[in-house]
Amino acid sequence: MDFDAMFDAQLDALKEEGNYRIFAELERQCGQFPRARSHDDDAPDQVTVWCSNDYLGMGQHPVVRQAMKDAVDACGTGAGGTRNISGTAHHHLVLERELADLHGKQAALLFTSGYVSNWAALSTLGSRLPDAVILSDALNHASMIEGIRHSRAQKVIWRHNDPEDLDRKLSALPANAPKIVAFESVYSMDGDISPMAEIVEVAEKHGAMTYLDEVHAVGLYGPRGGGVSEDLGLADRITLIEGTLGKAYGCMGGYVTGSASLCDFIRSFASGFIFTTALPPAVAAAATASIRHLKVSQSERRQQRAQVAQLRAKLDARGIPHMDNPSHIIPVMIKDPVKCRMLADILMHDWGIYVQPINYPTVPKGTERLRFTPGPLHSDADIDHLVAALTTLWKQCALAHAVA
Amino acid sequence: MDFDAMFDAQLDALKEEGNYRIFAELERQCGQFPRARSHDDDAPDQVTVWCSNDYLGMGQHPVVRQAMKDAVDACGTGAGGTRNISGTAHHHLVLERELADLHGKQAALLFTSGYVSNWAALSTLGSRLPDAVILSDALNHASMIEGIRHSRAQKVIWRHNDPEDLDRKLSALPANAPKIVAFESVYSMDGDISPMAEIVEVAEKHGAMTYLDEVHAVGLYGPRGGGVSEDLGLADRITLIEGTLGKAYGCMGGYVTGSASLCDFIRSFASGFIFTTALPPAVAAAATASIRHLKVSQSERRQQRAQVAQLRAKLDARGIPHMDNPSHIIPVMIKDPVKCRMLADILMHDWGIYVQPINYPTVPKGTERLRFTPGPLHSDADIDHLVAALTTLWKQCALAHAVA
Repeated sequence: MDFDAMFDAQLDALKEEGNYRIFAELERQCGQFPRARSHDDDAPDQVTVWCSNDYLGMGQHPVVRQAMKDAVDACGTGAGGTRNISGTAHHHLVLERELADLHGKQAALLFTSGYVSNWAALSTLGSRLPDAVILSDALNHASMIEGIRHSRAQKVIWRHNDPEDLDRKLSALPANAPKIVAFESVYSMDGDISPMAEIVEVAEKHGAMTYLDEVHAVGLYGPRGGGVSEDLGLADRITLIEGTLGKAYGCMGGYVTGSASLCDFIRSFASGFIFTTALPPAVAAAATASIRHLKVSQSERRQQRAQVAQLRAKLDARGIPHMDNPSHIIPVMIKDPVKCRMLADILMHDWGIYVQPINYPTVPKGTERLRFTPGPLHSDADIDHLVAALTTLWKQCALAHAVA
Repeated sequence: MDFDAMFDAQLDALKEEGNYRIFAELERQCGQFPRARSHDDDAPDQVTVWCSNDYLGMGQHPVVRQAMKDAVDACGTGAGGTRNISGTAHHHLVLERELADLHGKQAALLFTSGYVSNWAALSTLGSRLPDAVILSDALNHASMIEGIRHSRAQKVIWRHNDPEDLDRKLSALPANAPKIVAFESVYSMDGDISPMAEIVEVAEKHGAMTYLDEVHAVGLYGPRGGGVSEDLGLADRITLIEGTLGKAYGCMGGYVTGSASLCDFIRSFASGFIFTTALPPAVAAAATASIRHLKVSQSERRQQRAQVAQLRAKLDARGIPHMDNPSHIIPVMIKDPVKCRMLADILMHDWGIYVQPINYPTVPKGTERLRFTPGPLHSDADIDHLVAALTTLWKQCALAHAVA
C-alpha cells in the first residue's frame, strides 16, 4: 500500500486551497527582541516579529534567563521522569504554589503545555464525573474541543460569548447532572473578551462548574497578571482557571488552578498528566521568576497597552480596517488564504516585517487574517514602519478599505 | 452541586485500594547524579535515585547543560508561539535534521513530549486515512492507546509481542484497508523487547505500515543510539519511528521520523502539533547536543550495561527475584500496592534509596513492582548498598523468594 501517495494527495489538496503552511525559520536575538534573524533565503537577514505570543518580551528578560541558567547549573536539563516516577522537582512545587497564589486558589497543577492542560483536565472531568455535560463556547480553542471530544461526555455548544444562550441551554438539562461551563477570557484570533460576570452568574444559578481558559490573558491583565478574572474580581467565583507559561510568561508549560480536591483529582486520574515526563526544573524556575516579576511590575503591561493603542490609532488614521476589540490583539482581516499569504510574503521580503498569515484550521475558512500583537518592546518607529508598509500595500493591492 | 465532594469520593477510593500517589520531592544536584536532595521531611537530606529515566545521566552532562545555557543567552527562554506563528526557531530545524539522520529517515517532526507525539501522530493517521485499522500490541503505552482511541479508527489488539497473532489478525482484515501496526521496542515496565524482525516481516506481508515507539531505547541501543531498530538493522523497514528527548537524552520533547510526506502530513493535520507553543529553542539545542554526543560516545552505554549486569548478578546471588529481560530495566515484583509503597518508604527513609512504587494505572493491578534503572553513574558501592538494603528487607518482610 502506497502510504506516501495517500499523504501526498491530502497535502496537495491543502496546497490547492492555499492552506498549506510554510513555517518562517527564525532565530530570536536576546536583547534585540522583537528583532530576529531570519533564515529564509529571500527575506532580509534581520526582521521585526509582529505576531509573537511572547506578548511582553519576558522570554528574553534577564531575570527569567538567569533563573533558567541557574537551575540548569544546579540540577540539569531535564526532569528525568514522570511526576510520579522521580520527575517531581522542588522547582515544580514552588511554581505550583506561585500559580495557586496568582489566582487565589488552594492549589495548582502543572502540565507540559497549555494544550495538554486543557485536553487532560477536560477529558478527565468529562469522563470521570458520571453523567457530566460540558457546555462549550462555540469558539473555544482546539485543545478544549479535543479534550471534550476525548471525554465522550455529552457536549452542548452555546453561542459565542452569549450568556443568555448559555442560560437557555443549561435550563434544558437535568437538574442533577454535573455541568461544566467551559470558556475563555481573551479569544486569541478575534481578540474579544468574554462577558465573564454574566457567564459566572448564569453558571452559579444552575450550580454548574466554571472552567476558564486564561492563556491569552495571564501576565497581561489584572494588577498582578492574574488575568481578566483577577481584573474583574471574579477569580474566586470560577471553579478552575487554566493558563499557560508559554505566552506572556515567555517560557513553556500549562497549568490548572482550583480547589485542592480538584487539582488532586486531575493529578490522580488524568492520563495526559500521569504518563509524561515532567517539565524541566529549569523551565519551571524560569516561569516562576517571570510570574513573580509580573506580579509586581506594571511597566511591561503599561507600555504594551500604549503601543497597542498607538498602532490602532495609526491604522485608523490611514483607513486600514482592523477588528475592534478590547484586547492587545489586532486582527486585520484579509478573508482569502492566498491573498493573506501573498501580503505576508511581501511584508517579510520587502519590509522585513514578519507577520504569519493566519489560515484554516486556526480560523474558519474565509476569515483569513494578519494578526498583530504589539508589545512593550516595539518602538514608535517600528509601528510607523509597519503602518507605512500596510498603507503602501493597501494602495497597491487595492484591497477594500471597508471595516472588517 | 458539591464538586469537591465528588472528587474526594473518587480520591478516597484510590486511597483505600492503596493506589493513591505521593510524589517524592527531589532536587537533583548536578555533578552528583544519581544523588539528589530530598525535600521530604522523614527522608535523609541526600538520597540515591534508582528509578530515573535519565538513563545515562545526560541531563547533567556538561555539554548538554552548556548548549542549553548558550541558547538561553542567544535567544531566550521560550519559543514565543506555535511552530506556525513565530515559534519555529533555527534550533528546531537543526534538531529535526539530527533526528532524521539518527534513524536514517528523510524527515522528523518535533512535539512537546513523547506522549503528545504518540497521541497526535496516531490520532491523525487513524482519523485521516480512510478506513484505517490500527493493530495495537496489547501492552502499548497509554499515549498510544489514547491516540488510537481519539482517532476513532477501528482498533484491533494483538497479543503482546506475538507476531503470529498479529499475522492472524491482519489476515482477517480487508486487503484494501490501510493498516497500521503499532508497537514498542522496549516495554518500560517489564523491560522486554519486541521480536521486531518478525513483526516487520508480518507487517510487510500484509502491506501494513509499521509504527514503532522507541522511547525507552533511543540513546541506549544501537551503535549511534538509534534504538533497537538501529541495533537490528531494521530502521529502514519501519515506516515511522517515534522517540523522546526526555529519557536517555536528558531533556524534554518527543518526535516522529519517517518519509518527508509522512512528517509533512502529520505536521499539516495534527491538532496536538499545530495548536501548541513550540519547545523552547534552548531545550532543542540541549537535545541536539545530547544526541550528537551519544551518536559517537559508547562509554555511557557500555558502563550502563555493566552496572545493569552487576545489579542483576548480585540480586541473583542473594536470591532476590527480578523479572528476566534483555533490557536495562530491572523490575522486582511485589504484586500488592500497599506492600510496594511500604517497601519503597523503608528504602527511602532508612536507606536513602529512592525507588518509586509502581502501581495502577501504570501497571495492571496485582503486578505492582519496584523498578530499578541502573545507569553509568551508579557506582559499585551504590549497587552493593541497594542489594544490602533489599536483602535485609526481604528477610524482614519474609516475602516469597520465588521467581517472579
